[in-house]
Amino acid sequence: MKTAEILSVGTELLLGDIINTDAAYLARRLAALGIPLYRQTVVGDNPARLRAAIDEALARADILILTGGLGPTTDDITKEIAAEALGLPLVLHEPSLRAMEAYLALVGAPMTPNNKKQALVPQGAAVFPNAHGTAPGMAIGQGGKTVLLLPGPPSELVPMTEESAVPYLSRFSDGVLYSLNLHLCGIGESAAEARLRDIMDSSANPTVAPYAGEYEVRIRLTAHAADLEEAKSLCREMRERVLARDLARHLYAETDTPQAAADAPAWALLAALRAAGCTFATAESCTGGGIGARLTALPGASEVFLGGVISYANEVKEGLLGVAPATLAAHGAVSEETAREMAEGARRAAGADLAVSVTGVAGPGGGTPEKPVGTVCFGLADARGTVTETMHFSPHGTRERIRLQAGSHAMRMALAHLRQAAGRSDM
Amino acid sequence: MKTAEILSVGTELLLGDIINTDAAYLARRLAALGIPLYRQTVVGDNPARLRAAIDEALARADILILTGGLGPTTDDITKEIAAEALGLPLVLHEPSLRAMEAYLALVGAPMTPNNKKQALVPQGAAVFPNAHGTAPGMAIGQGGKTVLLLPGPPSELVPMTEESAVPYLSRFSDGVLYSLNLHLCGIGESAAEARLRDIMDSSANPTVAPYAGEYEVRIRLTAHAADLEEAKSLCREMRERVLARDLARHLYAETDTPQAAADAPAWALLAALRAAGCTFATAESCTGGGIGARLTALPGASEVFLGGVISYANEVKEGLLGVAPATLAAHGAVSEETAREMAEGARRAAGADLAVSVTGVAGPGGGTPEKPVGTVCFGLADARGTVTETMHFSPHGTRERIRLQAGSHAMRMALAHLRQAAGRSDM
Repeated sequence: MKTAEILSVGTELLLGDIINTDAAYLARRLAALGIPLYRQTVVGDNPARLRAAIDEALARADILILTGGLGPTTDDITKEIAAEALGLPLVLHEPSLRAMEAYLALVGAPMTPNNKKQALVPQGAAVFPNAHGTAPGMAIGQGGKTVLLLPGPPSELVPMTEESAVPYLSRFSDGVLYSLNLHLCGIGESAAEARLRDIMDSSANPTVAPYAGEYEVRIRLTAHAADLEEAKSLCREMRERVLARDLARHLYAETDTPQAAADAPAWALLAALRAAGCTFATAESCTGGGIGARLTALPGASEVFLGGVISYANEVKEGLLGVAPATLAAHGAVSEETAREMAEGARRAAGADLAVSVTGVAGPGGGTPEKPVGTVCFGLADARGTVTETMHFSPHGTRERIRLQAGSHAMRMALAHLRQAAGRSDM
Repeated sequence: MKTAEILSVGTELLLGDIINTDAAYLARRLAALGIPLYRQTVVGDNPARLRAAIDEALARADILILTGGLGPTTDDITKEIAAEALGLPLVLHEPSLRAMEAYLALVGAPMTPNNKKQALVPQGAAVFPNAHGTAPGMAIGQGGKTVLLLPGPPSELVPMTEESAVPYLSRFSDGVLYSLNLHLCGIGESAAEARLRDIMDSSANPTVAPYAGEYEVRIRLTAHAADLEEAKSLCREMRERVLARDLARHLYAETDTPQAAADAPAWALLAALRAAGCTFATAESCTGGGIGARLTALPGASEVFLGGVISYANEVKEGLLGVAPATLAAHGAVSEETAREMAEGARRAAGADLAVSVTGVAGPGGGTPEKPVGTVCFGLADARGTVTETMHFSPHGTRERIRLQAGSHAMRMALAHLRQAAGRSDM
């Protein structure tokens, strides 16, 4: 089977100015094609070091995907060095030049001399048009090796990969990889692994691997098979074996796409709301709109998510949510009493069936001995009443981590509530 | 000068299940120490391929930082392979075993046999305690090379790096790197580069590099100097040369930390609000709380950000923001008329000095011939009145990109408004 490597080019990656999301995205696409990826590398915009990395990668792998450095600036050297490594001259690609002229006219930008070099391609390259920028991508076959060049900006790389690179790469695909993720809460990674160790050791297809996430443990089952149905079937069988190890009670979501796996609480909650025909609203203080943003990042949220209130200031808690000033004065903004009135207020104000509230101390400042950083209170209100609870997330977590944990917890509270309600109606 | 490489270990990275934020974070810390980083590599949990990558990296670099694969599971092999590559036996580190017992007791988890292997360290290693997990980190000096092993979860890696790894690495630091970012809008990357090409070509310290971001162009100036003051001074001089190329009118923010650079619109808006003593509120439809989440991701947002309304459903636009049903019926939810009433409603409801509103079609569904995907309407209300505008973001962008662009545009509208107001009061 042909193997691949990814080589990302850009000094901004080596300085940590940007995060390499391109590599993760391409890795997922290669996995879906069943093309094994054994190494990713990042080098800067330096000709000698880039050349060395290309030569080394081509000595190991059959397919090399280079990202970045195709743009118009003098820092952009990827195409020139790749052509040199392959011993191919650069030639003008007239359709790319014309497409670039049309694109620049559309966005009202001038054709600068440095733009033109983007229309040069190594002789014999298959050119991938760029509908969202000026630099075309390309694929070059030479000496039994295949080299793909893709632009660095995700807004150009992703559509070009979907429209051109994946169809091109499908010729190398030998079956499919399929992953099923079991999302667990209330158990640690090592405890989960201890229950699964013999399965992990003895199973090669599907592979079974635990991962510690933000406030969850994910067990990833990955099967390789001739087609998707067979791979899914292998994962379903393994799922039963895994859950039988006293893990079923910790399972709160199952996902099989990276988008869903990336935010399983939001994905699972939306699915449960849709299944129940239940509308939803939020009252967010320390999460500042993060729950709303996570829910609405998923297409179709509008079917069940009505909206909510970001009640960062106490005046907004009072004015828009109807929290009583006496409650705030007696118990403080971070209290179950305030969380209760926030959830009830959001439900009433939005006219929703179900609402959650979050109010806490995300840090780094604002902690007190009674309510240290990481203290978060939650409310959950429906037509039958309101429940509240308090969680103490690790005060050593970053502000962002505490906010993510708090949002995930609120969404899982709502999810558990919907499942209990579904269980009752099943009786 | 000693050079470094980062080697990230984990099959989950090669499958694209997680994004390599650790590498970007460590790259920033190395840059701040002035330690050149020339390559990052990712390999999976495979002994032979990990060993080869370690051997190759140690042949090139003086300092190798390995992340991931220190945990309790059988997939975790980094320490074992690193010790083998360095020719060192693993020995039990008693303080780590005791710390792990204490940590597990604190979080109420059992000491499983697989946890114990985390207390083994290569002979002679300096051990970095892990306050947020069970696996200690470590540094090993051998044959003129230095190898650091750090845990993969960011919540463990970041505090361990700050508390132990950076102090350890500071012995290799030779001066500092300092970066100043000039954030531009209303100009493309290649147009900006055309104006700066001779400066980019002729300047080695600071280096000058343009980057295309989400709806902005960033010019990064990076200076290397003996101390921070000298590096800053070099960047300030270069800033004047760059802005003199007719770029000053495009400058909307300047940042010199990765946190600020990562979301310059939010960072700059909060700073301007604080400087003006102006309170702020939001009314978000298609961004779903994203503006609030971005503002409140930054510590200190509570000084000026009061909150807002996530008015995803029309009922919430009417009920909480007071948008007239007749306005929605006549012009639709995505209209400047609705945006106007949303902004005024948010300002009134939150009792804020200034409010913005966002209502648009983020896609992938919901577009019409009159209002295609990417159409977003904005409102900006203060005591003097309300202004509105409509933007057409590329319909080829992803939902997430359109939401980010819309949020950034709304925040820059508010920023420009505050600067105009400050200009008036200066007169």
